[in-house]
Amino acid sequence: MAQASQSGPSHLRGMFAPQSVAVVGASRSQGKIGHSILKNIIDSAYGGALYPVNPREDEILGRRSYPSLAACPGPVELAVIAVPAPAVPAVVEDCGRHGVRYLVVITAGYKEVGTEGLTREKDLLALVRRYGMKMLGPNCLGLMDTHTPLNASFAAGFPLKGEIAFLSQSGAVCAAILDWSLSVGLGFSKFVSLGNKADLTEVDFIREAAEDGYSKVILCYVEDVVDGQGFMDTVAAIGAGTPIVILKAGASQAGARAASSHTGALAGSDLAYDVAFHQAGVLRARTMEELFDLAIAFTTQPLPAGDRVAIVTNSGGPGIIATDAIEARGLKMAELTRETVEHLRQELPPTASFYNPVDVIGDADDHRYDFAFRHVLADPGVDSVLCMLTRPAVIDPMLVAGSIIARRREHPAKPVVAAFLGGDNVAAATRELIAAGIPCFNFPERAVTALSGLARFQAFRRRAPRADRTIAVEGVDREGAAAILAGAREDRRVVLLADESAALMRAYGIPVVPSGLATGAEQAVALAEQFGYPVVLKVASPQILHKTDFGGVRLNLETSSEVTDAFFEIVDGARRYQPRAAIHGVEVQKMMRVGIELIMGVSRDVHFGPLLMFGLGGIYVNLLKDVSFRLARGATWEEIEAMVSETKAYALLRGYRGKPPADVDAVIDVLGRVAALAQEFPGIAELDINPLFAYERGEGVCALDVKVTLSE
Amino acid sequence: MAQASQSGPSHLRGMFAPQSVAVVGASRSQGKIGHSILKNIIDSAYGGALYPVNPREDEILGRRSYPSLAACPGPVELAVIAVPAPAVPAVVEDCGRHGVRYLVVITAGYKEVGTEGLTREKDLLALVRRYGMKMLGPNCLGLMDTHTPLNASFAAGFPLKGEIAFLSQSGAVCAAILDWSLSVGLGFSKFVSLGNKADLTEVDFIREAAEDGYSKVILCYVEDVVDGQGFMDTVAAIGAGTPIVILKAGASQAGARAASSHTGALAGSDLAYDVAFHQAGVLRARTMEELFDLAIAFTTQPLPAGDRVAIVTNSGGPGIIATDAIEARGLKMAELTRETVEHLRQELPPTASFYNPVDVIGDADDHRYDFAFRHVLADPGVDSVLCMLTRPAVIDPMLVAGSIIARRREHPAKPVVAAFLGGDNVAAATRELIAAGIPCFNFPERAVTALSGLARFQAFRRRAPRADRTIAVEGVDREGAAAILAGAREDRRVVLLADESAALMRAYGIPVVPSGLATGAEQAVALAEQFGYPVVLKVASPQILHKTDFGGVRLNLETSSEVTDAFFEIVDGARRYQPRAAIHGVEVQKMMRVGIELIMGVSRDVHFGPLLMFGLGGIYVNLLKDVSFRLARGATWEEIEAMVSETKAYALLRGYRGKPPADVDAVIDVLGRVAALAQEFPGIAELDINPLFAYERGEGVCALDVKVTLSE
Repeated sequence: MAQASQSGPSHLRGMFAPQSVAVVGASRSQGKIGHSILKNIIDSAYGGALYPVNPREDEILGRRSYPSLAACPGPVELAVIAVPAPAVPAVVEDCGRHGVRYLVVITAGYKEVGTEGLTREKDLLALVRRYGMKMLGPNCLGLMDTHTPLNASFAAGFPLKGEIAFLSQSGAVCAAILDWSLSVGLGFSKFVSLGNKADLTEVDFIREAAEDGYSKVILCYVEDVVDGQGFMDTVAAIGAGTPIVILKAGASQAGARAASSHTGALAGSDLAYDVAFHQAGVLRARTMEELFDLAIAFTTQPLPAGDRVAIVTNSGGPGIIATDAIEARGLKMAELTRETVEHLRQELPPTASFYNPVDVIGDADDHRYDFAFRHVLADPGVDSVLCMLTRPAVIDPMLVAGSIIARRREHPAKPVVAAFLGGDNVAAATRELIAAGIPCFNFPERAVTALSGLARFQAFRRRAPRADRTIAVEGVDREGAAAILAGAREDRRVVLLADESAALMRAYGIPVVPSGLATGAEQAVALAEQFGYPVVLKVASPQILHKTDFGGVRLNLETSSEVTDAFFEIVDGARRYQPRAAIHGVEVQKMMRVGIELIMGVSRDVHFGPLLMFGLGGIYVNLLKDVSFRLARGATWEEIEAMVSETKAYALLRGYRGKPPADVDAVIDVLGRVAALAQEFPGIAELDINPLFAYERGEGVCALDVKVTLSE
Repeated sequence: MAQASQSGPSHLRGMFAPQSVAVVGASRSQGKIGHSILKNIIDSAYGGALYPVNPREDEILGRRSYPSLAACPGPVELAVIAVPAPAVPAVVEDCGRHGVRYLVVITAGYKEVGTEGLTREKDLLALVRRYGMKMLGPNCLGLMDTHTPLNASFAAGFPLKGEIAFLSQSGAVCAAILDWSLSVGLGFSKFVSLGNKADLTEVDFIREAAEDGYSKVILCYVEDVVDGQGFMDTVAAIGAGTPIVILKAGASQAGARAASSHTGALAGSDLAYDVAFHQAGVLRARTMEELFDLAIAFTTQPLPAGDRVAIVTNSGGPGIIATDAIEARGLKMAELTRETVEHLRQELPPTASFYNPVDVIGDADDHRYDFAFRHVLADPGVDSVLCMLTRPAVIDPMLVAGSIIARRREHPAKPVVAAFLGGDNVAAATRELIAAGIPCFNFPERAVTALSGLARFQAFRRRAPRADRTIAVEGVDREGAAAILAGAREDRRVVLLADESAALMRAYGIPVVPSGLATGAEQAVALAEQFGYPVVLKVASPQILHKTDFGGVRLNLETSSEVTDAFFEIVDGARRYQPRAAIHGVEVQKMMRVGIELIMGVSRDVHFGPLLMFGLGGIYVNLLKDVSFRLARGATWEEIEAMVSETKAYALLRGYRGKPPADVDAVIDVLGRVAALAQEFPGIAELDINPLFAYERGEGVCALDVKVTLSE
């Protein structure tokens, strides 16, 4: 799966613009897939050499047919395979022997049909890899490139030429979008049906589309991203070069079940996708409509300098609806400069609104609209403009469209979108705007969604990760840490004992409370006297997760006799509470003064690796769920700071209601150390520090309870 | 504004179906509003008597014109007035004298143009009321009724006949929706442009539409609901009879500003609208598209028995997208019965999915689709069905549409919606379904939104408020409470002193901590000894809001000397902290043992009256914002219970992590008492109990700190 990084920058160029294509399984019979593919290639005006391959035919669709790849008169760069599954291995073997570089395996009957198919798919992949070929599919619709041009698919149609690359894990979604795009006039650069993604995945095609020189935005429909780390690396390398918008299905739990039964894919937890996409600057579309509205915005509009939107409208109500949408989608209403307001006040009637939303009111003609739009568009406090129009009986929509198109040329760096409300009366003007590269919608909310996508991507560009701020922590004893983990492994334990966890923390420079394990009451007293009273006693058992539930934690023990009594009570209580739990003894801890209770943790996502968590700690963690997440891989100090500052705990740390501020720097430092630990030791499956006490500025933090679980 | 309840059930019937209409200001000149109105009435085939009124014309549009109302040959039931604003009063006076019952004042130049216009509007209203007439407007587009039929407006067009009543505070939104509806073929029963709502408001028209016998759903676009209480009463009376869907604009703060500058309306806080709509069972649409998708669902589909949705699809990807949408919108994926699964397993190919979403897979023909749909629709575990179709090249969409229409007749009680993905290839089948009353969309998410609206309304029907559970509290000393409030008023104080607040609570049976006001240290010690140590001392000053910020609260005082010291320290601290604050003394409280910290409160919304709040209390209230709201007016015990159970605090009250459960009954009882107090004394502007300690079951609750503010 990490193949993407092995081959050169244009590693898939030949797949989309091959010198020659063979269609293996080409057929004379209309309705057969092998017929449709050949016909599509011919109809797309593909300019390279084209070889139908079918041992039972001499000629198909006016082209000479060849009995085998070997019989083709020239080299074959791309082979499209549409023979029945049992015949595929021999064809692929042939391809390999005859120097074919790229395969599109249309044939179904692999992973998607169960265990037997999965075995077949593994064998197929091994064969492909043996010959160093690259394969799209199996079980796909094929691929298309409107710039080559080449339609190597059995889809019913070929998209209009455009700048949107579309990758889809579902062939049906591909086909439906293609059909829909033709009816609304939307153009594409590439169309890829990913199929089972046995060899090439969305990661490879995202990279190719970002480098092809004509795709301005990359859209994906995916149900999983199996190679999460390759995905993150690829997207990081693309950076802010090409916007990527993904509709990731299977977000709901039931959705995830449907995803697994459909594709056999192991769907990652949806949270990890949200976190990964956010961190990588990938925009996640929530609906199919949003996916395409964002695509339209990215292919036609520049990125705005910021998130301040101005509205020009000829009616108040729709302006208010748009204002609501602007705030709901995280954009800001621009504040117009005094100059702009004065200009508007001079020219517009007194009942107009000179502030944002600028309302030229219902009796406005196109001159008044033009005047307002010109001044608003030129305003330095405005980053993008939404032009709204109603009442086509009073104002000519075509003239307004013309004015928008003309004025927009004077300010090409600002995004402009339109919402012309109505039906047939605004249809021609809507088409005129769209043809001139200004998205125009029939309801205001979609126009605002389009603008918000642009602003979100601009915000990502601004916070583009800086490699020199990638987390690197100092004063770390890696060998010591490795020895602790190895020790537990040797004992076949997956949960570290409290003293091991504490030692692991110390090895990574994370302050922990002084503590020790006592197997008898006398040892407990000795530890208490070593640390100094008061102390805390806690049951030490890998099976007992919620120690407070049965009184397994005793606080504020002041004397040796209190420690002795507590020791026996805890051990007895634990035996009654969970009779089969292994009780290693009782942990004795110095009783620390109370700080702000935080939680830090790590879990491991099957696709994206360690997932770092931070938030408000203590017993209310599950109740309040005030937590933030990041992927540890590639995380920067900015990300760590952001994950602290986006929680409610941050308000406490800064000093809440007159309390002094806490040591935020120490919190961030420790969170970075946890991230480094999780990345450097993949054997750590889960880690929880809860609570971590944060003290006043300069006084640091202290981990009170640490739980470390190793992978099985 | 509360006129709605004064006149009989069909109080506006004559406005929509008058025996006779006069158009005052009718004009021969095309392009004039008075021309358009007359032409619209004629074109709508209105069957009653029609009198153009214009002193300068004898005939307009082939109708005889009359110089005045008095000159009309018969009585006039409805007058549509389109004369310039200065001429309106004389016309209205004339109408009143000649027995006109209903007025539509199209003329603008009233509240929307500022102070002068507002005065004009008040005078107009007084005139209308003097003659007992009812007026729509001023500053509106007019009204339409497709069943009468009557188009008494100057809109460019007349809607198709249908069952959707549409009311809009914005004339531009009216016009745009009308135009759009004609291009998509959506029908309406009534169309009302509310204008300035000087006399009749959305409340009156909602009531009329609910009773007209042909409107199946009521849609509103509003920027405010001025008569919040009339709205709640009217909607409560309609109950679950007719669904009401509202797009309330001005939700954002900036939106609210735009609303006020546009209509001069005092926009209520958006939270109050959310709470009111929820409580009244009104569905709030978040976008214009959603408003109409819900309308289509309500006019064509029955209500589902529950929220369990099944999907039938011929491709996996779109099924997963729909599954995500179902969960995201609060619906549930139906679990098919074993019988259904077995039927599907017998007939469908082995690679199909026999569970929900049921995937008949890509090679299915219409017979297989029909088989699956038939069994899924008949499944008793399925409340509604979403039919999805892709790949129109393999399966004939028209045949599938036919099967859906036919099978659906066998199960008329279950909602069925469709999403046929694609463009021109599915267009004919989509039209076929829509014509047969089955909503069909081109993306799955909108279909799910439509289903979710039906299920939400059904859930409201189920929880329809029971009048016998309306809050009535016992053991209340209303006269005592009134005397306390009157005392503060006499002193011209708007914030009650601590002892007054405590007495008010006691008058309403709300337990409060024993406390008293000490003006000297000796009195503080005397009170402490009366209550018993330990005690708490707090500064008593109406100006100091956050007492903990400067040490104005001292806990756990055990002796008389501690009390004495604390007294002087608090007074000195308060003087330094806020030198100009009036310090009434120090409040001495018994130190209560700690319970679960809750907050209860009341604020007062300008439109909807007292707004009740409940949530997690203590100093983190503002940080965690774990609160729920209800309108106190008409609240039932069910609502009070619901507002407790929907907070995170409820998890604590039920006994969190091994703690014993708290006295939830006492919490609910006290919250009901707060609601009753707020309703019975409108002079209470704000009330905060924070914290209220909740103790273990049977041990009740105790208010620790109570703040009551009166309206100015």
